[in-house]
Amino acid sequence: MPGGRRAAGLHRPHPSSPEEPPAQEDLLLAAAYVSDAQYNRNVPFETSPQAVRLYHFYNHWTMRAATYFFIWGDLALALFEEPALFPLPFLATSIAEVLCLTAFSGRLVHFAKVTPQMVFWKDTKNICIVVTIVLTLIDLIIYGSLEAVNIHGVRWSRALRPVFLINFPESRQIRRAFRSIRNTLPDILYVFLLFIFSMLIFSLMALKLFGDRGLKTVEGSPYFTNILDIAFELYVLVTTANSPDVMMPAYEFNWWYSLYFITYIIINTYIFMSVFLAVVYNNYRKHLKNEIRTLAYLKRHKMIEAFNILKVKVGTEFVVKEAQWRQLAKIVAPDISSSHLELLLRISDEGQKGYVDKMNFLRLADLLNIQVVTINIKRHPLEAWMPRVYQSSPSLLVQKVVRHRIFVWVYDVIILINAIFIALDEKNPLISYAEWLFLSLYIIEILLKLYTYEPRAYFGRKQFWNWFDTLIIIAALVATVANTTIQSARKYNSQQILDIVLILRILRLLRIIVSIQRFRVIVTTLINIGPTMLTFGGLVLVVYYVFAIIGMEVFHGKVHFFDPSSTSPDALVCGNPALKDSAFARGRYCRNNFNDLAASLILLTELTVVNQWHVLADGFALVTHQASKLYFIGFHVVVVILIVNIFIAFILEAFFVAYSLEKSEVETAIEKKIQELGVGVQEEEVLDGKLIDNVDAKDSGFSGDDGDNKRKALKGLYFRIASKKYKTVDALLQQMFESEIAPEDEGPSLEEILNFSPSDIHPKNPSFENSA
Amino acid sequence: MPGGRRAAGLHRPHPSSPEEPPAQEDLLLAAAYVSDAQYNRNVPFETSPQAVRLYHFYNHWTMRAATYFFIWGDLALALFEEPALFPLPFLATSIAEVLCLTAFSGRLVHFAKVTPQMVFWKDTKNICIVVTIVLTLIDLIIYGSLEAVNIHGVRWSRALRPVFLINFPESRQIRRAFRSIRNTLPDILYVFLLFIFSMLIFSLMALKLFGDRGLKTVEGSPYFTNILDIAFELYVLVTTANSPDVMMPAYEFNWWYSLYFITYIIINTYIFMSVFLAVVYNNYRKHLKNEIRTLAYLKRHKMIEAFNILKVKVGTEFVVKEAQWRQLAKIVAPDISSSHLELLLRISDEGQKGYVDKMNFLRLADLLNIQVVTINIKRHPLEAWMPRVYQSSPSLLVQKVVRHRIFVWVYDVIILINAIFIALDEKNPLISYAEWLFLSLYIIEILLKLYTYEPRAYFGRKQFWNWFDTLIIIAALVATVANTTIQSARKYNSQQILDIVLILRILRLLRIIVSIQRFRVIVTTLINIGPTMLTFGGLVLVVYYVFAIIGMEVFHGKVHFFDPSSTSPDALVCGNPALKDSAFARGRYCRNNFNDLAASLILLTELTVVNQWHVLADGFALVTHQASKLYFIGFHVVVVILIVNIFIAFILEAFFVAYSLEKSEVETAIEKKIQELGVGVQEEEVLDGKLIDNVDAKDSGFSGDDGDNKRKALKGLYFRIASKKYKTVDALLQQMFESEIAPEDEGPSLEEILNFSPSDIHPKNPSFENSA
Repeated sequence: MPGGRRAAGLHRPHPSSPEEPPAQEDLLLAAAYVSDAQYNRNVPFETSPQAVRLYHFYNHWTMRAATYFFIWGDLALALFEEPALFPLPFLATSIAEVLCLTAFSGRLVHFAKVTPQMVFWKDTKNICIVVTIVLTLIDLIIYGSLEAVNIHGVRWSRALRPVFLINFPESRQIRRAFRSIRNTLPDILYVFLLFIFSMLIFSLMALKLFGDRGLKTVEGSPYFTNILDIAFELYVLVTTANSPDVMMPAYEFNWWYSLYFITYIIINTYIFMSVFLAVVYNNYRKHLKNEIRTLAYLKRHKMIEAFNILKVKVGTEFVVKEAQWRQLAKIVAPDISSSHLELLLRISDEGQKGYVDKMNFLRLADLLNIQVVTINIKRHPLEAWMPRVYQSSPSLLVQKVVRHRIFVWVYDVIILINAIFIALDEKNPLISYAEWLFLSLYIIEILLKLYTYEPRAYFGRKQFWNWFDTLIIIAALVATVANTTIQSARKYNSQQILDIVLILRILRLLRIIVSIQRFRVIVTTLINIGPTMLTFGGLVLVVYYVFAIIGMEVFHGKVHFFDPSSTSPDALVCGNPALKDSAFARGRYCRNNFNDLAASLILLTELTVVNQWHVLADGFALVTHQASKLYFIGFHVVVVILIVNIFIAFILEAFFVAYSLEKSEVETAIEKKIQELGVGVQEEEVLDGKLIDNVDAKDSGFSGDDGDNKRKALKGLYFRIASKKYKTVDALLQQMFESEIAPEDEGPSLEEILNFSPSDIHPKNPSFENSA
Repeated sequence: MPGGRRAAGLHRPHPSSPEEPPAQEDLLLAAAYVSDAQYNRNVPFETSPQAVRLYHFYNHWTMRAATYFFIWGDLALALFEEPALFPLPFLATSIAEVLCLTAFSGRLVHFAKVTPQMVFWKDTKNICIVVTIVLTLIDLIIYGSLEAVNIHGVRWSRALRPVFLINFPESRQIRRAFRSIRNTLPDILYVFLLFIFSMLIFSLMALKLFGDRGLKTVEGSPYFTNILDIAFELYVLVTTANSPDVMMPAYEFNWWYSLYFITYIIINTYIFMSVFLAVVYNNYRKHLKNEIRTLAYLKRHKMIEAFNILKVKVGTEFVVKEAQWRQLAKIVAPDISSSHLELLLRISDEGQKGYVDKMNFLRLADLLNIQVVTINIKRHPLEAWMPRVYQSSPSLLVQKVVRHRIFVWVYDVIILINAIFIALDEKNPLISYAEWLFLSLYIIEILLKLYTYEPRAYFGRKQFWNWFDTLIIIAALVATVANTTIQSARKYNSQQILDIVLILRILRLLRIIVSIQRFRVIVTTLINIGPTMLTFGGLVLVVYYVFAIIGMEVFHGKVHFFDPSSTSPDALVCGNPALKDSAFARGRYCRNNFNDLAASLILLTELTVVNQWHVLADGFALVTHQASKLYFIGFHVVVVILIVNIFIAFILEAFFVAYSLEKSEVETAIEKKIQELGVGVQEEEVLDGKLIDNVDAKDSGFSGDDGDNKRKALKGLYFRIASKKYKTVDALLQQMFESEIAPEDEGPSLEEILNFSPSDIHPKNPSFENSA
């Protein structure tokens, strides 16, 4: 709420006279607004010069990196605490934890100094952090004292650690995913209750239909005689994990009974599970839209604030002078090259009038967000170094061959032959020699390409596939050499290095994707989804961590893993006689336990995949109590019904947005300007390799002639917008929404923006376009 | 293409003079157009009077019912043919089949007489039917002759039978679902190839990493030593059916190896499977929109044709006279009541000018499609019969009690207690007496309700939940009485009747849904999706049928089911020694076989649920050949990757459309008119039961005073639009699109309409609203 606060609060004198340049502190304040708009930060900060300076420091990358370091350090402590993967004494881990807590407190105090006090204490995020710090300290003290008198307590506060990951302002994405879940809950609750009701009805039917028949399961235990067991079996059937085994005894008795199970599966597995997905997806969309609308208006609001600070009156309109604009841009983006700045200024001050008007000023945050690549058309270094040889007819022939399609096809065939050789037995010495042959062929290919194309262009920042290609080959070369050296020196294969060599050798086959256009497109789309997928990584990690900590406290040491070579009779029952004759022991699942963090996380992954989860649940229920099945059911509801569905909703949305992808208005403006100035390069040309051999792509920055003489510099250089494909769904949606706000629209008031509700967004008249 | 044909073809004299009424044949032709528009039929028919008459007959419900009868009869033949559930001699089934084929040929000849010859032979549907009939006859002859000399042939043409279900014009929905799949194929193919490529890369890695370790699976067989086995295991892992078992040996050897499997699952199970859903869903949406646009324009086109036939000039504009309009409506909807017709005329001829203008005429098809319920406010029959008793204070008290909320709650509690009693052991005589108590309580409830509410209103056509309630209770009563009678007469329980009694007794508990508003809403939504879900039933049936026929030809008799009480050693290996020690035999899966149609369909259902499908595939591969796994993989790809995803896409779409549901323009017009005439009843009032006790709802039709004196009749009656909730997704989408075509828009030319492509539809500028 920067605007409201500023107006209500400090009343600093406004630079009303058009002659008087704004003070440095005004520039800093404006820069804070622009920077917040650029990165979509929505931190209400005090506007006093001191607070603004502190706020700049608060947002500095070192401070943020340090915060993340402590957050991850705190989470990683679970690796070293009992039950530990790498045990450390309690003293060491507790000191580390206190250190982390101190860092968090420091960060929070810093934040409190930046933000108005009222706002600070109204924000549940801050209160969560404070409460968690206090609770953790209390837990540490209790546990420490109990440990001192040799009583083993429960370190329950460890399950609270993800609170720090969620609640620091930097984790907006993860918080949104959680909000998404929370908002879905009321809607999903009734569907869930109805689903449970339907399950209970079916359980009753099963009890009445099959309970008295004296049927036996494959294991010989009585079939469907206890209502609780039946309910659990039917819940498992919804997850499909015990189909068709659960049906077989009834089906063998009378084939009509299979209709009972088919009806159950259609209603509960197919229809209800689809409805869960539909409800989750619908809520996800609704709230996504709402949040993005709020973000877009807040951004506009901040840019107007910044404009109001710097504006001076020229003629009848308020504008920002070129000098102030430059200073501001330099503060917001200190690393910007002067040629890039020049380009942005030309776009913002189209008439070269020496000032930027309001409409163009409001675009500044977007302009700074767009990566512009400065391209320097250059000759091949070999050509510069020995032009005669490089331009000789054999050399030209080589270049022509390398650029030809057939060159690519030949190497595709080589890769396929290589794949066949890999599949064959490598004990044969001929085949292991062939390995060297293939490796040399690949290296020759890369050398030939570097000879033909300009090396700096070939390894340009956005040339993902070239990098991929080369790194794989170099890694394989290094690993193979290392392996051979060790092998000849010690006369045996080093297992780890051999594994890596094997994997790298096979990953080389992925190069075939590069030469099939359609494959490359799919992979590029998947890679684009990558960054937002990391949000999901965060979300999943938080849930996994909490469940892992609880699991370790409850099930730790109940099941033991014995080495496969062990002959101990305990090995057959995982060291716990309660598991005798259980499916858990029969399946040799002993390694699926909660005895350390890694094992717990792997077990939770298995539960996420769903299959056989009931065997795992049964196993842990046998060694503890039947009620512990609730832990596994809870995990299934949270992870599979909620999170996996949100993941699917997210992938679907990402695909649909990608399909309707267009350039944003601002990007179009920049490209138009680049074209007008005659310094543009079409992206397609670069991709097709037509230019790649004599173009040097660098991100923002002239080589050598920074500073003055820009007009000349602009003439010798080419720009292009860095690949528009690498964008997140959120960014794309926000762009779409922003292009629908009229440039002169000041947006609703801050109060209104912060109180948007998803239902406002629903179109009054649903139209054909947006409904299907 | 009715329009084009007519213009090019017959040149019948057009009724150009405004005085001359159109001939009966013109009315019939116009009625054919309107009727086609009303039911979205797109059959190009000849416009000669004879052809039009034949076309009316072609569309008559008896003809269509007969066609469906023969289609289903033909499909059902598989129940009686070898391997048969109910064996019949070959002669009987082949005569039945020839009968069906004759019926199909007749239908086709009828169609050929209606439609222009050129069009008939251009339509692949017709060619498909002709080819299938010929092929089936050839197959019958070959098989019959072979059988005569005692050689057992293959009845391969049986797999073609679903062609009839798909290709008769009536099955537009199923055909569209298939078209949807076909259109998706090119897009999905590349994703599938990339997925297979990724699977092969991982297979190679697995071979190299685990092949030489000498690891053993739980069964003791070598682990990951053969590339084909590995590829199959990894395909199964994508379906999650062998997780985590397939990982355990490697995980036991070294826990780092679990990362290999986790990576594989994330990439192939989560990401690729979501991408499949996204691609399928995106295509489904795209083509759905395109088809609906085509349908909407074709409908408009047909209505314009009809208008052009009947139009006469009044003043400066062309109109249709009231008398012709009436005649037309009567031909299109012969069962329409005159009061309903009067209402529609009032809407179409707002100024009561004695004619209907073009714009209003075009709405006729929509008007006829809207169900208008005529409501007759009536007194309770008891009140009419003995007013003194019914209005006495004890009687009024009873009525007040029944209408009170607490009455509902009391019965909810009774149902819950009933549920507990059902769960308890019914051997206890007290509990079996309680059953009678509950039954009487329920009957008393219904009698009380009938006493309080007007019976004809209580059992109104749209009072789904009242019907449900009553039918369940009556059925339970009848079954319980029948059961007790048989029990006391023969001294033992009849198994079938007992089962039915049990199920009905439990279904009674569903009544609790009625009293929870949120539950009722969810169930209503699900019921609305029902009709379109039947399309899916058709689609799934076609695929299942083809796979079942193939499966029966290939795997018939390879696996036998022995009675559970059988002590034969063969019973343990399902009568096939090849299954010794297999997971198939261990899991007692003998009943999962292809020995008759019912067993095959149940087995295919189990494969659709996915879990343990690899055990079934392995079992059938053991008794035949490893290559038969391809049958199971093919089934998984077709049913789980394609059809289940389309099913999910459909459910998602249905939900989103339901969320953005509004009344259509035409419905609004009707409702407005009803309100203007002062004969409206709000649907909410009816639902709330405020009116239900003295309102009698009947579908279209005055009781008694049909015909003249309408003004008076209209005053004594009330109308309302029948529940707008019962609509399919298609209908809703089409309405939305139609409301976006301007009333005066004639639409593109017929050529253009028929050549619409989905890419035309994509908005030029994707907007925020329709992208998220």
